[in-house]
Amino acid sequence: MADELPGMTLKAIGIVRNAVKQPLKQGWENVVSEIVVKSSLTEALDNLDEFSHIIVLYWMHQVAGSKSPAKVHPMGKPEVPAVGLFATRSPHRPNPIGKTTVRLLKRQNNILTVEGLDAIDGTPVIDIKPYLPRYDSATNAKAAPWIAKQ
Amino acid sequence: MADELPGMTLKAIGIVRNAVKQPLKQGWENVVSEIVVKSSLTEALDNLDEFSHIIVLYWMHQVAGSKSPAKVHPMGKPEVPAVGLFATRSPHRPNPIGKTTVRLLKRQNNILTVEGLDAIDGTPVIDIKPYLPRYDSATNAKAAPWIAKQ
Repeated sequence: MADELPGMTLKAIGIVRNAVKQPLKQGWENVVSEIVVKSSLTEALDNLDEFSHIIVLYWMHQVAGSKSPAKVHPMGKPEVPAVGLFATRSPHRPNPIGKTTVRLLKRQNNILTVEGLDAIDGTPVIDIKPYLPRYDSATNAKAAPWIAKQ
Repeated sequence: MADELPGMTLKAIGIVRNAVKQPLKQGWENVVSEIVVKSSLTEALDNLDEFSHIIVLYWMHQVAGSKSPAKVHPMGKPEVPAVGLFATRSPHRPNPIGKTTVRLLKRQNNILTVEGLDAIDGTPVIDIKPYLPRYDSATNAKAAPWIAKQ
């Protein structure tokens, strides 16, 4: 399998602006951020504010280029046994893409104000999608028991 | 803003294998696919099968390089008024990344069998995450009224 197909290069469509300069261990739920989208994409944001929630994909630039281990301790807690990397949301992934569902508080031209985005100031945003409850949520989903320990 | 930051290049971590050679208009819910992950990443899949659902990020290679319009008709239906691209799940995005929540049926070594992945055969997979109900779903989410018309 080719590792890098032609064209698998990302363009930033915007950038995160908030007061968080280093990753938090917790408390992201209440962080309010602005997503400043490239002004050339302003029209493509029309109608987004008809949704209460949006999905933000972003590039975790601070860890990009770091090694991705096969196993990690969930939430970095040594007391929780290490599990496979892809069974966690660790940022140290082969492709450091973060995916967060956030509340959309406001859209003003090319600026989105959102609540709950767990990305630090300056993070490049690579996609924005409307959150579609029936498509994006799973009914009767079961998570691993060690998730509750986090 | 720099359009392409250093390191914003994706590596395929696996590939989709299924019977769907061209995109479907509907009926993806019942499609069963295999995600063949690079064998060097097999150990990183450990514990993933403790989750009933996973999130798959993939590169929509068939539309990569195509123009992304500012406005699109949802679901390509001309009778639904055009809306901003980012208010839709159109594949014609600046970064053609798809994001789907799927049911994980089985994991065997480096092969995941999943149900409901709306990606054609040969699609490069770029990330796999566990679906965490409290983190990934939004309560009381409101979608635009034209979503119901799709």
